[in-house]
Amino acid sequence: MATDTRESGTALDLKFDSNGLITAVAVDADSGEVLMVAFMNREALERTLKTRKATYWSRSRSKFWVKGEESGHVQEVQDILIDCDQDCVLLKVQQKGVACHTGRRSCFYRSVQAMSGAESLKVVAQPLVDAKAVYAGKK
Amino acid sequence: MATDTRESGTALDLKFDSNGLITAVAVDADSGEVLMVAFMNREALERTLKTRKATYWSRSRSKFWVKGEESGHVQEVQDILIDCDQDCVLLKVQQKGVACHTGRRSCFYRSVQAMSGAESLKVVAQPLVDAKAVYAGKK
Repeated sequence: MATDTRESGTALDLKFDSNGLITAVAVDADSGEVLMVAFMNREALERTLKTRKATYWSRSRSKFWVKGEESGHVQEVQDILIDCDQDCVLLKVQQKGVACHTGRRSCFYRSVQAMSGAESLKVVAQPLVDAKAVYAGKK
Repeated sequence: MATDTRESGTALDLKFDSNGLITAVAVDADSGEVLMVAFMNREALERTLKTRKATYWSRSRSKFWVKGEESGHVQEVQDILIDCDQDCVLLKVQQKGVACHTGRRSCFYRSVQAMSGAESLKVVAQPLVDAKAVYAGKK
């Protein structure tokens, strides 16, 4: 499909990478806060559209990953947006519990501090739940 | 670095992909709205930290891309967050003008509509500026 059509048209024409993946950003449907970033392949998106439960492709485990299937911390998808060049999707979700496996609401809990040319990280959010307990109870 | 240290530590230890890239999500520092998703390599991040102007790596042009260098629609970076496994950065920016080259505030201006198993896109945001005019004046 031509670039113009892909960018201005109303046909879904996703641009997957060489591994058949696309970036997926999950945000809280109410606050807009970015919760996590993961990947989807075509079928993961299809499953997400069908079930309305965020379903990613786990690169490390090479399998579909229904977010929260073990922890109960599922993401109910309210809306899916596509960016201009159709290589990224944005999921607006109702997050049950927390998004991050560390027990924090969002995976983005550290801020980069750059001083005198050296970088370090500052923790800016604490766990809301004990992630170990959540997962231990499910395995 | 061990996974635990990468996830809970305060050392910046980014996990670049096989192309030396990391996903970068830019959000409006005030509203939290996701504006765009692009890529950075290590030097793009270094340049961003140093100049506080969002600088990406353009995969299509194979060059550094100071956002807004042609259009004037720069992103002044207020904060940079890293996710749990350090393979994604979140930029909190003050966006001058608009983020999308189509003239829209955000690149995510289309929503996926799924009905009867067929998907289409619905445009949910209109251009705020005439992108063609902006770029025409700079080239």
